Formats: sequence, C-alpha cells, structure tokens
Amino acid sequence: MTEPYDVVDVIITKRDGGKLSDPQIDWVIDAYTRGAVAQEQMSALLMAIYWRGLDDAELNRWTDAMIASGERLDFTGLSRPTVDKHSTGGVGDKITLPLGPLVASFGVAVPQLSGRGLGHTGGTLDKLESIPGWRAALSIAEMTAQLERVGAVVCQAGAGLAPADRKLYALRDVTGTVASIPLIASSIMSKKIAEGTSSLVLDVKCGTGAFMTAPGPARELAATMVGIGEAHGVHTVAVMTDMSTPLGLTAGNALEVREALEVLAGGGPPDVVELTCVLARQMLDAAAAVLERTAGPEAFRLAGQLREADPAEHLRNGSAMDVWRAMIAAQGGDPDAPLPVAKHTQDIVAASDGYLTRLDALQIGVAAWRLGAGRARQEDPVQAGAGVVMHAKPGDRVVAGQPLLTLHTDTPESFGRAAEALEGAWTISGTRPQATPLVLDIINLLPASKSHPADRQDLINNNGRRDPD
Amino acid sequence: MTEPYDVVDVIITKRDGGKLSDPQIDWVIDAYTRGAVAQEQMSALLMAIYWRGLDDAELNRWTDAMIASGERLDFTGLSRPTVDKHSTGGVGDKITLPLGPLVASFGVAVPQLSGRGLGHTGGTLDKLESIPGWRAALSIAEMTAQLERVGAVVCQAGAGLAPADRKLYALRDVTGTVASIPLIASSIMSKKIAEGTSSLVLDVKCGTGAFMTAPGPARELAATMVGIGEAHGVHTVAVMTDMSTPLGLTAGNALEVREALEVLAGGGPPDVVELTCVLARQMLDAAAAVLERTAGPEAFRLAGQLREADPAEHLRNGSAMDVWRAMIAAQGGDPDAPLPVAKHTQDIVAASDGYLTRLDALQIGVAAWRLGAGRARQEDPVQAGAGVVMHAKPGDRVVAGQPLLTLHTDTPESFGRAAEALEGAWTISGTRPQATPLVLDIINLLPASKSHPADRQDLINNNGRRDPD
Repeated sequence: MTEPYDVVDVIITKRDGGKLSDPQIDWVIDAYTRGAVAQEQMSALLMAIYWRGLDDAELNRWTDAMIASGERLDFTGLSRPTVDKHSTGGVGDKITLPLGPLVASFGVAVPQLSGRGLGHTGGTLDKLESIPGWRAALSIAEMTAQLERVGAVVCQAGAGLAPADRKLYALRDVTGTVASIPLIASSIMSKKIAEGTSSLVLDVKCGTGAFMTAPGPARELAATMVGIGEAHGVHTVAVMTDMSTPLGLTAGNALEVREALEVLAGGGPPDVVELTCVLARQMLDAAAAVLERTAGPEAFRLAGQLREADPAEHLRNGSAMDVWRAMIAAQGGDPDAPLPVAKHTQDIVAASDGYLTRLDALQIGVAAWRLGAGRARQEDPVQAGAGVVMHAKPGDRVVAGQPLLTLHTDTPESFGRAAEALEGAWTISGTRPQATPLVLDIINLLPASKSHPADRQDLINNNGRRDPD
Repeated sequence: MTEPYDVVDVIITKRDGGKLSDPQIDWVIDAYTRGAVAQEQMSALLMAIYWRGLDDAELNRWTDAMIASGERLDFTGLSRPTVDKHSTGGVGDKITLPLGPLVASFGVAVPQLSGRGLGHTGGTLDKLESIPGWRAALSIAEMTAQLERVGAVVCQAGAGLAPADRKLYALRDVTGTVASIPLIASSIMSKKIAEGTSSLVLDVKCGTGAFMTAPGPARELAATMVGIGEAHGVHTVAVMTDMSTPLGLTAGNALEVREALEVLAGGGPPDVVELTCVLARQMLDAAAAVLERTAGPEAFRLAGQLREADPAEHLRNGSAMDVWRAMIAAQGGDPDAPLPVAKHTQDIVAASDGYLTRLDALQIGVAAWRLGAGRARQEDPVQAGAGVVMHAKPGDRVVAGQPLLTLHTDTPESFGRAAEALEGAWTISGTRPQATPLVLDIINLLPASKSHPADRQDLINNNGRRDPD
C-alpha cells in the first residue's frame, strides 16, 4: 500500500514546533499500529512531542486516533447510568476497592477496567487477585451482565481497546518519553473513552509517591484530561489529591484488601474513608450531571437522588459491603475466604519519642515493591501477602521502641533491601505537625491548557520513570 | 553481558538538558554499535541531542567514541605530509577532481576518502566512475602505496572506519535528526580523523544549494568542526563558500569530469579555478603548519616551499594534469578514454533579453538528479552522462531565444520532471547584478561555539533532508 505521508516530514514538522494536521495524526497512529511507521521513527516523534507539546486540537485528534485503533465499548443499553474512576497511581491507593461497590450501591454502573502494578505503585488487579478464586479476565458480555445485575465490576482491559496505546506505551517506557503531559493524558483518556463510560472522575495524585511531584504539572495534567474528556462527550471531573504520604496504613496486595474491607465495614483509616467519600460524591454528581442532560422525568428524579445521596451512610449500613460481596462472587472469588498472609514479618521501631511529622510515600512504595508486592517487568509475578503495614501516620505521637512499620514478605532475604529503601523515610520531631489537606483541588469543566511546554516537564517526578497510564 | 548503564537514564539526562559523562558517551556509542541499545532508543537520544545540543566536551567525546568504534588509518610512515579536504556538498562541486592532483603536485599526500551522491548533490566517486575502468575500492595497502608514489588518491571509505557513524547516519536519515550541528560535525569529523590525515581543509557551503542555507548555522558548523579537529590533533581550517548558484557550468557526473579536465588543462570556468586555487592555498598552508611543528631543517624547508607555492602555476604548466593522469591510471582508469555522453539533450532558452541575475543551485541540482545524475536511495544506479550544462551564469548578458541550459539524459521521459524542477530557477533583468563573493570567510583556530541550541536549527535547509556527512 502506498502511504499518503512520509513519516520523516511528520517528525520534522513537530521537531520544528509546527502543528500536525488531522490527517497526519490519523495516519501516523494507524501506520504505527500496523507497522508501516517503524519503532525508531515513532520514538523520534514522541521525543519531539515531549519537546514541543501538542495543542488542544492536536491532542484531541491524537486521542481520537488511538481510540479508533481498536474497539469501543458501548454501555448505553444499560438501565443504569455509568461512571468510572481513574487514579494516576499512588502508594497504598486501594480506593477503587471500596469505591466501586459504594457508588454502585446507589444504582450507578461502575465499569472499572484496571491494570496491574509496575514499579512502586500497586495495581488494582494485583490486589483483587489476592482473593482466592477471583478472576480479572471477563468477556464483554460477562462484564455487561455484571454491570446490569451488580453494578460494579473491576476487570482487565481486553487487548482490543486502544491497541495503539499499548504499543506506544511500551515504546515510551524504553525511550525516556513517558513523562509528557499530552502523551500521559491521551494514553489514559483514550482507554477510558474507548471503555464507553458516560462520565469519569480522575484522581490526580501529587507528591513524592506520585508520578507528578509538584502541583503545577499535576494541575496541568488534570486540566488536560478534563479537556479531552469533555471534547469526547465524556463528562469528566478531576480531583487533585496529596500523595506525599501513603494512603491508609497498608501498602501491599492482600494487606490493602484487608484495609478496604475495614472501610466497607464502616471502619478503616480516616484518610481512606475521606477520599473514598469525596470521590464517591464526585462520581454521583457526575452521573447526575449526565442524567440531567437526558430528557425525561425519570432520569431527572434519579439525578436528584444521586445528588442527595450520602456515601458515608452506605459504608456504615452495609449497602456498599453487599455490592462488594456480590461483585467478588460474580467474578469467581470467595468473599469469605481467608486472605493470604506473608510467611515472614519484621518490625521497624521508632528511635525516639515525639510526633511523626513525615512518612515518605515513595520510600514506602519502593520498600513494598522490594518485599515482593510489586514488579519490575510486566511479566513478573507478585506476592499476595507482601508489603508494609504502618503503625503511625504523620501527626501521630510515637514513643521510642514502638513499632513504626511491619514489613511482610515470603522472601526474607528482601528485608535488607527494603530497609535500605526506607532510610530517612520518616521524621520524628518534638513539635506536632500542622495537618495538611488530602484533597487539594477539584477541577471541573475548565478549558484545557493551550500548550504543554517541555520546560515545565522538569517538575515531573521521574522516579521509576513510569506513569500509570 | 551486564551493561553498566541503563540507556533510558542516558536519554532522560539529555532530554532534561543535562550533560552526558564520558563513560556514558563511550558506552552508548559502543552499545549501539553492537546492538545492545535499540534503534528506537538511539533515535530518541538523537532527537534529545537535536533539541538540547552537545557541549564541546560532550561533542569531542562523542566523536572519539565514533572513531573508536572502528579502525583508524595511520599515514605517519609516509615520506610526504598529508592533507585532506572535505566539502559539505553543493551543486556542480567538482573541486575535488582538480584539487587533489594539484596539491599533490607540490609533494603533499592527499588521501581523499569520498562518498557517493544522495539527493541533489553529486558524489565524487560517482563522477570518477564515469571514467572507463576507474575503480573506487582500494585496499589500505594500495591506497598507501599510491599516496607515496602518486601523492593523490580518491577512493571509497572502507566499512571499517567509524562503523558507528554509518549506523547512526542511516538512523538519522529516517528519523528527522539529520539537521543537528553537533551530529553533522561529529559525523564528518569522526570519518576524517579516523582516516588518519594530519591536516584538513573544510569547504562549508552556504546558500540554496547547500545543506545550510544561512550564514549563521554554516559558520557555527564550520567553527564546531574546526574545534573538533584541533581537539583531536588534526590541524583544521574551514572555508565558507557561497552555494546559491552552481559551481562552474556543469552539474552531472561525466559533464563535471570534462569541466575538471579543462581546469587541469589551465582553462575552465573562473569560479571553479578560483575555488580550486583558494582551497589549494589553504591545504598547502595547513600542511606547512603541521611541518613547522615538526623538528628538523628538512621539514622546515619543505614548509617554506609549500607556503610560497603558486597553485595557479601548476594548473597552467601541466603539473597538476600529470598527477591527475597518474592517479586515474593507478586506479585502473584510462585518462585518454572518451567520457560517456547522454543519448538525449534538450535546450531551455532565454525568454527575454537582459542580464542573468540569479540561477538557483538547488533547482539545477534537483533537475540534474531527476535527469539521472543522482540517486534517491543508496542502492540506486546513476547515469554517467546525465546532467545540466549551463550556458550563462549570473552576471552574464543573455538574448531572448539563446540556450540558457542544456539538459542531458539517457531517459528522455525525465525531461518533463526536470523542467518542472527548473520553474522559476533563474531571473533575467535589465540591470547588471552586483558581483557576489564566492569565498565568504576562512575560519581557523577559532574556539568551537559553546552550545548548539536547537532554536538556531530552523535556519538549516531541510531540502532533501539529507546532509553530506
């Protein structure tokens, strides 16, 4: 087949700061997906995009082209409105586990296509796979039926959704082109839009344990994704949250499931409960907003119910737990089976009395990873029981000799490397620290920023060099 | 083998504007040459270098590493001093043909390793191959013996010289990373330094028919190459020359050999004679400068002779022609054999009376290429007889109906496409144009510029997208 463009012209256009035309973008994504544009040519284009950015029109078209590379799910036949949530990834972020069942308990469908963990941030599928019998792979028919009946589903994305993104993401990972806001935003949003949700709430993390360490780039990423979502007819809201300290008291697969169960039972750590309720509120509002655009008194009535719903109440009264149990069972899991426990544990104790003023998210994440909870390569296995349990969080009073952390692993030879990762990970001080907010901002219906200059990318965290898109 | 670096870290360092360490540079060039760094990783690094540049220390080390990837010739055993010349490539640039024999006629060895043409600029080997029997491939022993006996040699570079550059150049060509001053400079200089010459004169072209259209980048490239040469112990001088109009009256392989023979016979177009003599003067001075650094009265005496030599005299008295004939015969060619002639010609005539004020080098070059004198891909054949003969140059008076150009080809179906390339290629005006200088500047022992910001690269000509390195 004769190609309508020469990819070198496309690369040079972007290299020199020019704008790619719609047909050029459509062609380059399609030609790359089918192999007519070589890996080394796409990586040069990606580095040029890293440098020069993509403007709003280019970015929307780039996302379109990635969606068009594969199939697109359609949940418009469901009797329930759909709302999805995506987190850019953090340490101890088990929020998806209670959140999906909680939102579903109000009659909304939550079609969560998730991934596995890579590097220091865990993956939702890895966490759920610590539940005996639970399976991540569902057919589209199974997923749709479960959404209609249970309301909540968490499963792995099929290979048919945005295959261009899968190929591009693998290339970015080995060519130093991950940390680009337009490339991150289009990667996340192409998958979420192809997934067929009608509304979406993004949890954009910011801090040492997040991909974005500084608020500026995190806000820009959030605004960019909201812009793409709205341009594609998916009502999108972004919540910017702090990730300088881990969420909750656990980091590790089964350890986090256990904590999620505490939240679903009406307890659990306050920060996990707070974020679960904030995100649930945004998801219910997003679903309501979509319903309010629909004609008909029935949709309007349901929207009103969603706007008045109280998420905390459904954690307290067991409604969310009921959906959780139905969701786990529907995917072959036994909600009553005991969760795996690591074979070995080791405590790390406080060296002095005082207030814990800092507990670094990245270092806890790396320690959990080294203990076996995470993986360095996609094909590596993970340990279900491994991870870190925290006995204090910033603001808590500690005494010398008390356990601060307990390390869990099946491979005790990893204790040494985990302890190394934790060197200097916390501070104990005589002064009680000021409380810092967990939710930093909510970004809704803002226009996406006009450009993504590479100069601002130096604020992006390159720890682990991978983003969660 | 375990690699000492992760190439993604190297890419990210340069992407973020950092400096690569010496061991990083040595490793990345070596690992790329042996395949441990993938094409898509090197192309991302090349685009980052295009963006961020290389400072003098990085550039010298990058050049070292390319030289170290292969063998390095050594002519220090010759009884003659060595001096080489490199042109960045232009239209009608046949200067190497008379220049090598001319300089050799003064007792200097000129070891010219040349390439074939690509795009609109011709290659010296293609030109010489129009001489029946002449062969470009010589062993190192043959080359050394010919240098000692004849003084001049033009042959193709063996695969053993700077193999990293060959691989990198092919990659740059398909990834939009050709037009980077540090990458061009290190590519040219690694080959010239590996070639073992003790001094070098560069002809850096500037104008529509050259890779660099504007004087600023051409001067920066020239200064960068002089800096690399001097840092590697090769005395290097750069002559900046105009390439907005073709050199001489011919563009095409055998057509240019015929014109070179006129110059060697004491005639020929004034611009070709001028540039041949200017470059010969610089080469003789460069060889003298190297001799003057050598101990001993004999070397000093020869240096004095070279400094006082008159190149024009050796064109007039047949000394340069004698060396030419010996050089051609030594490589199997018959200096008396008739040169190939194209089967078909077509004249293009002046439409009005007046002065020719402009004759565009690029357009003449593209026309000659389309007529069959050049190639689009390395593996394409060229026609020996094809090309363009010019009957007037800027400043000449023309009358309506007189032939301005004659197109030569074996493939008359190409006349149409050649004529298209020539649309608007010249201007005839009532006013005699001001004469413009051919030699714009001579750059000698200047410190190389400190940085190579990509912003200035937009002044570089991307016509054909290939540079002659």
